[in-house]
Order: sequence, then structure tokens, then C-alpha cells
Amino acid sequence: MSDLVTFGETMLRLTPPGNDRLERTDTLEIRVGGAESNVAVAANRLGVDATWLSKVPDNPLGRRVVRELEGYGIETNVVWADEGRQGTYYVERAGAPRGTSVVYDREGAAVTTTRAQEVDFEAIQNARVFFTSGITPALSDTLRETTTNLLKAAKQGGTTTVFDFNYRRKLWSPSAARQTLSSLFPGIDVLVIAARDARNVLGLEGDSRQLAHKLGSTHDFRTVVVTRGAEGAVAWHDTVVHEQPAIETDTVSRIGTGDAFTGAFVARRLVGEDVPTALEYAAATAALKRTIPGDVALVSKAEVEGVLEEETGGVSR
Amino acid sequence: MSDLVTFGETMLRLTPPGNDRLERTDTLEIRVGGAESNVAVAANRLGVDATWLSKVPDNPLGRRVVRELEGYGIETNVVWADEGRQGTYYVERAGAPRGTSVVYDREGAAVTTTRAQEVDFEAIQNARVFFTSGITPALSDTLRETTTNLLKAAKQGGTTTVFDFNYRRKLWSPSAARQTLSSLFPGIDVLVIAARDARNVLGLEGDSRQLAHKLGSTHDFRTVVVTRGAEGAVAWHDTVVHEQPAIETDTVSRIGTGDAFTGAFVARRLVGEDVPTALEYAAATAALKRTIPGDVALVSKAEVEGVLEEETGGVSR
Amino acid sequence: MSDLVTFGETMLRLTPPGNDRLERTDTLEIRVGGAESNVAVAANRLGVDATWLSKVPDNPLGRRVVRELEGYGIETNVVWADEGRQGTYYVERAGAPRGTSVVYDREGAAVTTTRAQEVDFEAIQNARVFFTSGITPALSDTLRETTTNLLKAAKQGGTTTVFDFNYRRKLWSPSAARQTLSSLFPGIDVLVIAARDARNVLGLEGDSRQLAHKLGSTHDFRTVVVTRGAEGAVAWHDTVVHEQPAIETDTVSRIGTGDAFTGAFVARRLVGEDVPTALEYAAATAALKRTIPGDVALVSKAEVEGVLEEETGGVSR
Amino acid sequence: MSDLVTFGETMLRLTPPGNDRLERTDTLEIRVGGAESNVAVAANRLGVDATWLSKVPDNPLGRRVVRELEGYGIETNVVWADEGRQGTYYVERAGAPRGTSVVYDREGAAVTTTRAQEVDFEAIQNARVFFTSGITPALSDTLRETTTNLLKAAKQGGTTTVFDFNYRRKLWSPSAARQTLSSLFPGIDVLVIAARDARNVLGLEGDSRQLAHKLGSTHDFRTVVVTRGAEGAVAWHDTVVHEQPAIETDTVSRIGTGDAFTGAFVARRLVGEDVPTALEYAAATAALKRTIPGDVALVSKAEVEGVLEEETGGVSR
Amino acid sequence: MSDLVTFGETMLRLTPPGNDRLERTDTLEIRVGGAESNVAVAANRLGVDATWLSKVPDNPLGRRVVRELEGYGIETNVVWADEGRQGTYYVERAGAPRGTSVVYDREGAAVTTTRAQEVDFEAIQNARVFFTSGITPALSDTLRETTTNLLKAAKQGGTTTVFDFNYRRKLWSPSAARQTLSSLFPGIDVLVIAARDARNVLGLEGDSRQLAHKLGSTHDFRTVVVTRGAEGAVAWHDTVVHEQPAIETDTVSRIGTGDAFTGAFVARRLVGEDVPTALEYAAATAALKRTIPGDVALVSKAEVEGVLEEETGGVSR
Amino acid sequence: MSDLVTFGETMLRLTPPGNDRLERTDTLEIRVGGAESNVAVAANRLGVDATWLSKVPDNPLGRRVVRELEGYGIETNVVWADEGRQGTYYVERAGAPRGTSVVYDREGAAVTTTRAQEVDFEAIQNARVFFTSGITPALSDTLRETTTNLLKAAKQGGTTTVFDFNYRRKLWSPSAARQTLSSLFPGIDVLVIAARDARNVLGLEGDSRQLAHKLGSTHDFRTVVVTRGAEGAVAWHDTVVHEQPAIETDTVSRIGTGDAFTGAFVARRLVGEDVPTALEYAAATAALKRTIPGDVALVSKAEVEGVLEEETGGVSR
Repeated sequence: MSDLVTFGETMLRLTPPGNDRLERTDTLEIRVGGAESNVAVAANRLGVDATWLSKVPDNPLGRRVVRELEGYGIETNVVWADEGRQGTYYVERAGAPRGTSVVYDREGAAVTTTRAQEVDFEAIQNARVFFTSGITPALSDTLRETTTNLLKAAKQGGTTTVFDFNYRRKLWSPSAARQTLSSLFPGIDVLVIAARDARNVLGLEGDSRQLAHKLGSTHDFRTVVVTRGAEGAVAWHDTVVHEQPAIETDTVSRIGTGDAFTGAFVARRLVGEDVPTALEYAAATAALKRTIPGDVALVSKAEVEGVLEEETGGVSR
Repeated sequence: MSDLVTFGETMLRLTPPGNDRLERTDTLEIRVGGAESNVAVAANRLGVDATWLSKVPDNPLGRRVVRELEGYGIETNVVWADEGRQGTYYVERAGAPRGTSVVYDREGAAVTTTRAQEVDFEAIQNARVFFTSGITPALSDTLRETTTNLLKAAKQGGTTTVFDFNYRRKLWSPSAARQTLSSLFPGIDVLVIAARDARNVLGLEGDSRQLAHKLGSTHDFRTVVVTRGAEGAVAWHDTVVHEQPAIETDTVSRIGTGDAFTGAFVARRLVGEDVPTALEYAAATAALKRTIPGDVALVSKAEVEGVLEEETGGVSR
Repeated sequence: MSDLVTFGETMLRLTPPGNDRLERTDTLEIRVGGAESNVAVAANRLGVDATWLSKVPDNPLGRRVVRELEGYGIETNVVWADEGRQGTYYVERAGAPRGTSVVYDREGAAVTTTRAQEVDFEAIQNARVFFTSGITPALSDTLRETTTNLLKAAKQGGTTTVFDFNYRRKLWSPSAARQTLSSLFPGIDVLVIAARDARNVLGLEGDSRQLAHKLGSTHDFRTVVVTRGAEGAVAWHDTVVHEQPAIETDTVSRIGTGDAFTGAFVARRLVGEDVPTALEYAAATAALKRTIPGDVALVSKAEVEGVLEEETGGVSR
Repeated sequence: MSDLVTFGETMLRLTPPGNDRLERTDTLEIRVGGAESNVAVAANRLGVDATWLSKVPDNPLGRRVVRELEGYGIETNVVWADEGRQGTYYVERAGAPRGTSVVYDREGAAVTTTRAQEVDFEAIQNARVFFTSGITPALSDTLRETTTNLLKAAKQGGTTTVFDFNYRRKLWSPSAARQTLSSLFPGIDVLVIAARDARNVLGLEGDSRQLAHKLGSTHDFRTVVVTRGAEGAVAWHDTVVHEQPAIETDTVSRIGTGDAFTGAFVARRLVGEDVPTALEYAAATAALKRTIPGDVALVSKAEVEGVLEEETGGVSR
Repeated sequence: MSDLVTFGETMLRLTPPGNDRLERTDTLEIRVGGAESNVAVAANRLGVDATWLSKVPDNPLGRRVVRELEGYGIETNVVWADEGRQGTYYVERAGAPRGTSVVYDREGAAVTTTRAQEVDFEAIQNARVFFTSGITPALSDTLRETTTNLLKAAKQGGTTTVFDFNYRRKLWSPSAARQTLSSLFPGIDVLVIAARDARNVLGLEGDSRQLAHKLGSTHDFRTVVVTRGAEGAVAWHDTVVHEQPAIETDTVSRIGTGDAFTGAFVARRLVGEDVPTALEYAAATAALKRTIPGDVALVSKAEVEGVLEEETGGVSR
Repeated sequence: MSDLVTFGETMLRLTPPGNDRLERTDTLEIRVGGAESNVAVAANRLGVDATWLSKVPDNPLGRRVVRELEGYGIETNVVWADEGRQGTYYVERAGAPRGTSVVYDREGAAVTTTRAQEVDFEAIQNARVFFTSGITPALSDTLRETTTNLLKAAKQGGTTTVFDFNYRRKLWSPSAARQTLSSLFPGIDVLVIAARDARNVLGLEGDSRQLAHKLGSTHDFRTVVVTRGAEGAVAWHDTVVHEQPAIETDTVSRIGTGDAFTGAFVARRLVGEDVPTALEYAAATAALKRTIPGDVALVSKAEVEGVLEEETGGVSR
């Protein structure tokens, strides 16, 4: 029985080597990535049993996703589907002014057909935390309904619900996202949201502190975490706002930084640490993530604590 | 203006290195492959201007397909689509008893929505040969109709139509294939068909000679080529049957062998050679293809003729 | 709770690409391999929950071994050691007359210090089958004693014990192996042994049938499987001898063939099939293993059954 | 018929992976690069039909060059030579203080024997712009003469001539370059020159504005573009000087930056934009080029315009 | 007969590509590295014949070490051992805040059993300089004694002894290192020491100048070089202190920087240059080393002198 | 002072991975190969000190050749040239019917300008055997004269001369080769010649025994070795003919097989073994070579003797 259960889509991630272009490359790196499994892995790295729920096609591509995630240490609990694809996305890494770009190839994914009754409710209700993100309801009408129902089920089971707003402009418009995601707010205990999304999607104004405060005082959240820039963050909790600066890092891969942050935050809260301490772990985990290729925060708790103790980035030998 | 014009789907082909499994590999080779573009490339290699018509998504994946094909020397003439995916397939190479296996990920491909009016009719009608295969009408109802119309247009333009039966059991049942493909026969001048398909799909009996004879005498084909095993073949032409033995080869990649055969056959017919000579070139091209990784017959005419002159496979230095 | 529990050393396996030499190569493939984890993976592939027990150093190399095995689907249950190395071996692949060669670098491995009391007895006693091999007691005096105790514990718990004789001449002399391994025979229910070892180490004579009969009738085994050549085999069970021919295969990697055989045999016995059927699955799994790089039989039950139904090694599409 | 026609040498480019040294590396990346084909590709990316003229050996190396360039979207029109080599160069990438270094292996290249009468005059005279660079006449006496004649032919056909001064100290001395290249000035409409070359080779003094002004007012050029540093530039046109600042970039590969600049400038002038706008596109294309491995600016017009609209270098998803 | 002879352990160095983690990577780069062979290579690059003495296992791994070093241009003179391992270490490259980390797997290495009488005394006594480092006596009691004896033998033969303090916290405690290494000081002519080690291990205080002065005036060294940060350094020689600033560099690999510094310093002293000049070469060699992957300074004397003449890090072509 | 000294060209060898084509590959393997250095390496592997003499350009490409050869264990003694290229060749590996093909890019190589007075005569005259091959005089008029002079010098110094006929049709015609090479015969003690060359170039007839006998009895050779097929051979020595069958092998790379044969033959003759024994070692070394990628026989004497003792090609562990 895992303390943390997450639900969402995980895609195959195909990436040309170095900074080469899809138009020309003859090889691709293949890994997996998805907000909800990323969060599960990061939390697990920081000491929490975690399970990822999803639906994947019963073919070598679906098995690939499941096996890679199990190889990162988490449990998986998936519906094996006869219909529907394995979602895929292509990443072209680049520095400024090109910028890393993503080509999604996720239409028709098996996961988009998941109905609440296919999901292991018991796993969610026996967990201490249930996590999903704003990507999930954006993927299909079915998933919008399923997300609502799973959050409801978690609540009924006494499971704390954590939700990352995670607006993706390639999936839906700001107004569609606002409407759907706002409707989920009553079912959410802990909201994580980028300052950028709070402004551009929810239409709020102010600095991060103000955004956190507005969200916390307007809705019925227990905690609101507003992330910004290189994953520094501000948390509103019990009417108090805590600030966590970002940690400097030589960035190798940005994707998954927010998930690493959230996973670590949830993990440290689960082991009983207070919000400011959890934020510190979260920022350190996010910083380490950025030194690691791929979407997943393959860190150890010792490494995270090494960062907090301000060990530097030389050669350890 | 190309002498040969082909129409069909070309997919991205993703392959683990060596004989590794999709479930585990961390890298994939990326190439493109599709019966109709394979045929165009093989024909071009043997001295014929060739153009591939299709519809691809207007994104880096679609551009990748188009650019790689142009880099093989053929012309492309595609509709750039805002909707629909780039079809993809995964190949796991293996010897017996595992056998090479293919995972198709081609649902929702942009090409499946191609209507006849989107295709460059003039290119087809100005060509001397138009080629497509039984894969195309299997992909969607729209493409079934489009295939019918393109064959009709070719006929009206006085363009010879060549058709490879190419039954794929992962796309449709034998009976569905038989019904659709038989209905196309009146529009076809030259039919290429595997003996296996003639038996299992069309329900014919007999050895390759008999199959060729039956097909040639029953329908209104000018030429019928029946391929078998390692691409030896039998051709029925003007009531005469010609036999072409296969050429021994150290096989590196089977996929695309039949397309290499057909492309070379068409090319040599187009430059005016008789059926037995065209069959020889076809068998040599098919044999060379099997020594080359990927789907595409990157051969030269000189190499093909070297095989026909029975130069051996040692070291040329 | 797994049905199958295995105990033994798993090493990092470092291999130059293709057939290159260690003396020169600039890259190595890194995988893991070990008889007992190989058996667990093969059994798991054929439908049985399996757990591997061992002791590994608490460093990135030890974690690598555990994570890769979990990524193959089995459970792990290891002692994390502060002392002792992660065993490693280097493989140079080659055809005749060079032949694949192995350089072991396994001295001082953490696993060699494992004492019985460190091992999870409950896991063994709650399992239906416990497996280890003749490599384990060859690694250290401590492990010789531990092997004896674990087999004893299994017996006490009513767990069936399966043992692969697995003589390794780079680890000990035939006479040392004979003395130690014979002393373990009373604790073993199912013995798997290569005909070569039965002759060269145990000093028995005769063909495989005779070897199986001699072993079965002399000792108190329930089953004796004698393997030979490309993993054809003979099994003595309840006084009856069953013969299983080998299956032809395009071999990519021999290492791990015997473990694939044993894992599949155990798995099919566990699901209740009779000895001849289990032997068939075992031979098919072994044949498939030889088409897969590395030590581990990354097969599916469907593929194994495809081999048994004599599907051939062409292209499945 | 292409709007832009270029003539010059394109070499195979062989590069060790990462920052490794030729002395030791076991693998090389192979690509192609040459000022005149680089310009053609960059221009084509920004919407202009472009053709590259040259002479290459009729062997797999020459075919490699032609095929790769066609795969980048341009047309090729080459003389296939029976004599002469395919020019090659080796690049060792490195940061400061080592610096990227180039080993040329281009002596005896087939292209160095190209006489004007071998070149497709009609293609040049039917184009709107003809481009070559100061590298071409540096390669051989024959090419010096050919360059003169091709520029003359272009003029006669009413084709605008664009010339990049491109001094290479590994090919000739500053005085030899000055003498030869100055003699070509009367045939040139648009001169592109690095401030460094204007100073060190032509012996001019002053800042970039002054250099542009001196060159523009002294000779009969329609336009003079003086490039500097990270490809900021100054253009003198119709007695007016326009300034274009450089765009900040995370540089992956410097080689080809100037060609990207020139190609984009030519392309935007050809579609009718004014000099300042063409300079903006040029600077953005040059900046994007520096984020792409290899010599060639594999950009899209949309990406260039994205840079001009100041989209930042984050993750687009 | 080499002018410089060094003695010490050289390990196989295994590194995941890019910044990937050992836990997951499927390939490793394999190279060799060790302080004493690194110094020999760097000195050789700057014009001095150099020989590395050691003991390696008589297997493909030991041969690999010897062959790679010979391929870098130095002589080797090793004892081929039947017992003992080839030391190995794993490097995970990373930027801040993760930092590059090293996993040593060097226990039981053959070299740790080397006794003085196994070493070629004549080679040491006929050389002009003998070099070893503080790593050697840290590896085993035997090597501590051997180090003492080799330094003594060098002195007796009139060979100058150079010693790099090289404290490694993964090998021993500061106090153990201080006790052992201090006892070697009387046998040392030239001491190289990091300011960090002088402070943390020897307990000295002050800036680099003061550290050099204290060490030089307290002990009987001819020269003391105190290195710091990015390998700027201070040298005390004949009571005078010389200062050498570091040279800015785009760092690709830090490991081996100090060895490059020392090797170049020794080489230039051996060819008769004064201490300030030798320091300049040393700093330039160290800066170049940081642009080269791996442990070894594959530079040329011309490149080093290019840095001293302040040529910049652009593209040389 | 080496027992064996060889003189000739060694080229960089560039090879696409697997069986891919130069026209398309994005990576090349880089190694070195040349008949005379191959012979030196093979002889060295079998216990003889060997030195390779040549002339190479003083640039990273020339250094690469020298360093790689030193890394294989032989000595090098080369003229560093300011003029002239480093010869290069490209290999496309392929099975039947394509066959491995070679593209030479060796015109203008520095070695082709080597005059006898540049070569270290003393090294040749102090050696016990001097080796060169028929490739050397084919490369330039200068080298034809140099070859004559070096053979003469060897004779004068009492050094045994060994010569491999090595006809290369891409370098010269049979008649040109016959004329030049025959004129060298009086200076040759031991001739190695392929039966194919004896027939096609020298115009001799008969089976291998007869060819050896004719050559031995007509000219003043001490020994004549006629090689055939997969490097079985016949040797005429002191009027007696000895026959050596080929050894079966799983061939990975044919190139260099003959050089491995000759190097081993020379080595074993040098250590005093009789002709039949030397032939056995030669055949075994040739067979092992074919299991190793590249041109060079990276074998050990123990492996060669293992083949002679008929150990099979299984897994040694």
C-alpha cells in the first residue's frame, strides 16, 4: 500500500542526441515522462512509497513505459488496454534563442479513455495523498470526468488531494482550462501553480506572495504553492506565506523540474516536516533535477541533503 | 515531370539497435519507410525520375519524412496537413525463432484523410507509370475511395497503373482485403502479388506459375508478377510466363525487399527492357536491398549490374 | 509474497560493442546478469511472481543492479552493505574460433559475506519454490554455509528447492565442486545439471538419458533435468525419463540460455503443467533467449507459445 | 529555375563526438559543409528556391555530399568527375583557451579543376541572384579564372552578384587574397565582408560603419555588409548605413554562422524586403544557426520570426 | 632511458555519456586515469621522454591500461601480476549543485601488493626526475613502504624527486595522511600541494603565498608549488615566491587538471626553463586539459604555446 | 632494436556502422590499417619486437596513425612531413551479393614522396627481417625506387627480406605490377603471394602446390608461401612443399587476414620454429583475425595456441 498514489498519462519521450534537429537526426534517445509519474518518482526518491495509476496499451510500447517506471523504484497499477495508442512526444533540446521545443504525438492515447470505474479506487482511498495535474482533464472529456470522480473518491476516503495546475497551451485555451480546473478546486487540498499560470489562465494579478495569498484566501485549499522562475516558490499555508528562493544550477534539462519540486514537497510533508522545510527539499530536488537528462528526478535523499548543506559542485573523490 | 509517380503512406521507422527489445532499449534508430516511397526510390536508383505523392502533417515529423526521401534522390509532392498525425512504426529485429516484429502506431495519420481532389492529378496523368499498393486502401474508407479515383484518373490520362497487392494482416482481414482489392483490378495494368497472398487472400491454388497464369488469364492485366520466398518471381505477360530465380544473399534487413523488386522492375520496363530482363534487375535489386539496413534500396545501377554479371561478395579493392 | 524466491550474486556485465576487444574499445554496454536473477526474470515472464534475494553494496553500482532487475518486472529483497564490492564481469563476444570470453572481476563482492541470518527466511519459507545454483557456494566459505542453511530453511518451510549445478571452472576445481555440491544434494528437490558437468565434475558416464536416470535413482531428487548442447534436455521425473529436443535458433547471445530454460521450467511447473509441457516451454524460452542480447530472457509468454505453435522467424506485420 | 544559384566547394566534415581529440577518437560524425551550399540552404529555409552548382567525384563520397544537400531541400546541379578527390575537413570542437580547430584535407579536390564552360551558365543567368565566396578563387588557379568568368556571365545575364569575402588564412596570404579578390570587385553587386578581413586583408581602418562606408563609396557596389563579432552587422546601401545588433545565443557551433547570415539576407532581399528588415532576419538566422550542430542553418522561417518577435528560449509545450 | 619516471596506480575509468546517471545508463565510456601516468603523459606532451612504472593484472583489463597509455606516447614498464585486480573507478559528470562524483572500485588492486624489489630501480636511478603522489602510499601498507623505498632509491641515484600531496578523503583520514606523507618529506625535492590540503590536512594557515613560504622554509624542499582554484599557483623556490594566475577556460572535464599542471611544470624544468616560465606552461597546460574529456592532457607543445601567446578560443581555419 | 622492421603506408580507415552506406551514414568508425603495419602488429602479438617505418604528415591525422599503432604495442619510426596528405580509405561492409567495398582516398599522401635516404637504414640493417609489400611500389614512382633501395640495403645488412605480392587492381594494371614486382624478386628471400595473383598477374598456372613449386624453383627465393581462399596456404621451402589447411571461422572482418597470416608466419620463423609450425600459427592467427573488427590482428599468443589445441568457440567462463 503506497502512501502516495498518482494518476495520469506518461508518454514515451523521443529526443535527438545533443542539440540536433528531428528533421535530420538518425538516432533518438527513448525515455518516459509524465507529470504524475515524475511526481511519484521524485517522492519515492525522498523516502515515500509511491504508486502510479494509468491505462496503457498492451503492447511493447505500453510495457516499455511500465517497466522503465518500475526500474525507477515506484509501483505501477495500470489497466492494460486493447484499444488506443501509447502517447509519445518528441523533444528538440536547444539553448536561446531557439529554445527547447516539444512535438506532442499523443492523440488517441489509451489513457484518454480511462473511466473512473477502471481505476483502483481502493489504492487511492488507502493512500495518504492522491496527486494528479491539470494535464489529465485536458486530454479528453472522459478524463475530465474521471479526474473529478477520482478527486471526489480521494476526499471520501480521507486521502489528501494534491493538484498541480500545469497549464499546457498546446492542449487547450486559457479560458477552457480556467473553467475546467476551477471547477475542480473544491476537491483539492493542496494546489501547486506556476505564477505564470495564475496570471495568464486564472487572470490574477500581483507578485507570487500576493498570488498565493489570493488563492489561499479565496478557495478552500489547505496549502497553495506558487512556483516561479527556476523553481523558487512561495507557499501559503494556514494563512501564513513562506518564501523559498531558487538554488543556482548548471541546467542540463528543464523538463520535469516542477514535478521534481512537487514530488519532493509532498514527500517531505508526508514524513511530517513543516512547510518551510518541505519547500527547501523541494527546491534542492528541483535544482538537482536540472542537472540530470530526461524528465525524471533520479536523485537520492543524501544528494538532496548535500545540496541543503551547501556542498558545492566540484569533484567528490 | 517524373516518369513514375507513386501515392501512399510513408511512416517514421523506429528501431532498437541490433536485436535489442523495445521494452529496454535507450536508443532508437530513426528512418522512414513506406511501400510507395520505397518503390519510387528503387526505381530512381535504376535510372527513372520518380515522384512520391502523399499528405503529411506540417510539423518536424512530417518534414523529416519529406526531407529524408528527397535526400534519397526522389521528388516529393505532398499536401501539408494541419490535422492528423505522422504515422510511425517500431521494428524489433530478430532471427529465428523470434522473428522480426513490427508495432504499428499509424492510427489517425494525416494521410488517411487524403481525398482525391487534394492530390496532384496532373502529376499522375503526365507520368508514364502510376504506382500504389494494397496498403493504401486498407488505411481508411477515405483512402479506399481515393485509391479508386487515382487509378481511374491515371487510366484516363493514359498512365500505366502498377499495383502491389501487399496484404497486411495487421490492417484488415483477408475477406475485407479480397473484396476491396478485387474491385480495383479493372483499373490495374500490372499486378504484383506474393504467392502467399494469392493463396491466402484470393483463395487461388497452384504453384507460382499457375497463380500467375490464373490471374493473367482471368483479369484484364497486361502483366502479373507473382513473387515468392526470397523474392524469386514468376511473371505472366502477354500470355507467356517467365521465371526468375532468387539470388542468394546474406540478409541484413528483409523489410522493403518486395518494394525494391517492384521498383526495379518498373524502372527497367520504363527504359524499354523486356520482361525477363526487368525481372533479372528486379531480383538483383531485391538481393542487394537485403544487404542494406532499413527499408530503402540504396543501390546503384552499377551495383545491380555487378550482381547480374555474377561478381562475388568478397572485398573489392 | 512471491511464488518463486531465488538467492545469489548478480554482477554488472560490461561488454564492448559488436565483437570488439576490451584492449581497445572506447565504450562498454552495461547490463546486469546472474544465474539466480536470470531464473527469476524468466519465470516471471512466464507468469510467476518472483523475488531475488541478495546483498549488494549501498552505492550507485549496487543500486544499478537492483533497479535494472526491478525494471525487468521482478521483486528484489536485498541487504544493503556498507562493506564489499559490486561484482562485475566483462564479456568479449566472438564467433569461432575465438569464442566468447569472460573476465570475472568479482573478488571481494559484498554478496560473498552474506550470512544466513541476514537473509529474509520468511520470504523463502512462504514461497512455493526456492532456487539457487552451484555458483553461489563457489563464491566464498561463508556462502557455502549460507547456501546449506537456506536450502535447509526452505525444506523446513515446505518450499520446493530447485538447484542448478552450474559448474564454473574459473571459480573452483571439479573435485572441490563435487565435494561441496554433492553435500547439498539431500536438500534439493529438483536438480538441473548440464550433461557436461555430470560427466566432468560428478564423473558419471552415459548419454543424457542415462545420466538423468543415474542421478534420479541414486539420490533423493524428485526431478532431475539434464541439459545439453543448445539446451535440448532430458528430464527424469517419478522414474520416467522425458526427452525434449532443442529448437533451432539464430544465436545472438548464448549467456543465460540455461537460466532461461530453468526459469521457464520452474514457472510452468508452478502453474501446474506436467514435466513434458514444462520442458517444451523451457526449450522455447531458451531458444528465444538466444535471439536477445544480454543475459536476461526478456520474452513474453505469448512469444514462447508462438514458438511452440511453430510460427516462423519472418517479419510479422 | 531557382532564384538563387551558388557555386563553390562543399566538403565532407568529420568531427569527433563532443570535445574529443582526433588523435584518440574512435568515431567521427560525418556531415557536409561549404560556404556556398550553406548560403543556399539558409536562403531556401527562408523561402527562396536555391540551387548549388559544383563538381564532385563520381564515387560514394561525392554522392554523399549531393544527397545530404538535397535532403536539406535545395537543388543540386553538379559535374560528376572521374578525376579528383572529394574535399574533406576535420573539426575538433573546443572552448577557450583551446578553441575549435580545423584540419583541411582538400588538396586535389575535383572542384578545383572546374572550368567555366563546365558550369551551367543558363542556371546562373536565369537566376535572380548568383552567389560565391572568396574561398572559391583561393582553391586553384583554375577556380580563380572560373570565378571571374562566372561573375561576368551573371552580370551579362542581368543576375545580381553577391560575394562573401571570406578570407581563409590556411588557404592563402592576405596579400594574395587582396590582389585576387579586389580584381573581382567590379563584377560584384553586393559584398559581404567581415570587419576583421576589411582591416587585415584590405588594410582599411575604422569601425564597422566606417569600413562599410569606405567600401561602398570607393567601389561600385550596390550594397556592402560588414559583419562583426557574433554576427552583428552594418550595411551600406544607397549611401545609407544601417546597423544591426547581434542577438544573444547559447552557442553550440559557430561554423556556418556567417553563411546563415548571408543566406537569410539574400533571401529576404529577394522577396522584396528592405535592407534593415533583411538584416534583422539575417541576424536572427545567424543566432539560430549557432544553436544547431554542424555547418548548416536547419531553421524554419517561423522560428526566425519567433526570434524577431523576441520569444524566449524556454520550453515550448 | 626516460628523463621522467613515475610510479603509481592507473585505473580504468568508466563514465556514463553526458550527465547521465550510473543507475540508469546503458553505455559507459572506458578510458584510463591515474595521477602518475597523467603526469607522465603531460610531461611527454611537452617534450620529455617519460616512463610509467606499475603493477597490473595479466588479463585484458591490465593490458588495456598499458596499451592505452602507450598509445598516448609514453613508455610503460610494468610487473604483470597473476594475483590482484585491475582498479576501476566510475565517474558521474554533473554541474552544480550535483557536482561530478566518483565511485572507486579499487580494493584488491594488483598494484597495492607492489614491493620495492619488484620495481625497476635502474629506471628510476637513471632518470633525471622521479614522480609519485600521495595517493600511492594511501592505497596499502605495502605501498606505503614501497613509496618510502623508491624515494630513497631515487635520492641515492641522484634523481630529483617530485611529489604531489594529492590528499583523497575517500582513501584515508586527514590525520593518517598527515602522518604518513609528512614522514616522506625528507625524501622529496619538489613538493606540489593544493592550498586546500595544506590547510585541511597539514593544518597550516594563510594564503597561498604564505603556505608556500611556510612549507619551503620549514622543510628541506628545493621547490614548493601550492596550487589553488582553477589551477592558478604559487611557487616557492630558492626562498623566492613566484605567482602564476589561472587561465580562463570553458571546462569540459576537471579531473586530471592538477596532474597536467605538474607534468608540464616538471617537463619545462627538465628542459632547463626557470620556475616562472615553467609555471606559465603548467597553467596553460592545465587550462587546455580542462577542455579535453577524460583524465589525460592530450595537448601539444604548440597548443600550449598558443595559449601563452594569448591566441583566443575562436575557430582556427 | 626490433627483430622485424616494416616499411609502407598506413591509412586512416573510415567505416559506417554495421552494413550502412556512406551515402547516408551520420557516423564513421575511425581506425588505421596498412599491410606493413598490420604485419608488424601481428608479429608483435606473437612475441617479436617490431618497428614500422613510414612518412606521415605532421598534423593530427598523422599523429593519430602513429599513436594508434603504438597503442597496439609496436614501435614507430616515422618521418614527419610538412607536405603531403594522410592517406585515407572508406570501407562499406556488406555480405553477398553486395560485398565489402573500399573507396581509396590516398592520392597525394606524404608517404608517396619518401626517398630512401629519409628512411632509417640502420634500423633495417640491424633487424633480422625486413618486410614490405607490393602495395608500396604501386603508390608512386618515388616509392618504386625507394622499395628497390630498401630491399637492397636490407640484403647488404644481412637482413632477411620478406615481401607480400599484394596486387591491388585499384592501384595499377596487372602488367605494370608484373613488370615492377618481378624486378624486385632478386632482392627477396621470402615471397608471400595469393594464388589468385600468381595466376592473374604473373600468368602462372596450376594449383597452389604447383604455383609454389614453380615460383620456388624459378627464382632465388628461400621460401615461397602461396595463400588461397580463407587463408589456407602452401609453402615451398628448401625444395619441399608444405600444406596448411584453413581453419573455419565466423568472419566479422576479412580485411587484414593475409597480413595477420604473414605477420604470424614471420614471427614464428624468427623464434626458430620450422615452416610447417609457422604455417600453423599463421593460419590460426588469420582465423582469429577474421573474428575481430578492423584491419589489425589484436590477438594474443595464448589465443593462437588455444586455436591450435582445437578449443572451440563456446563461452569460456
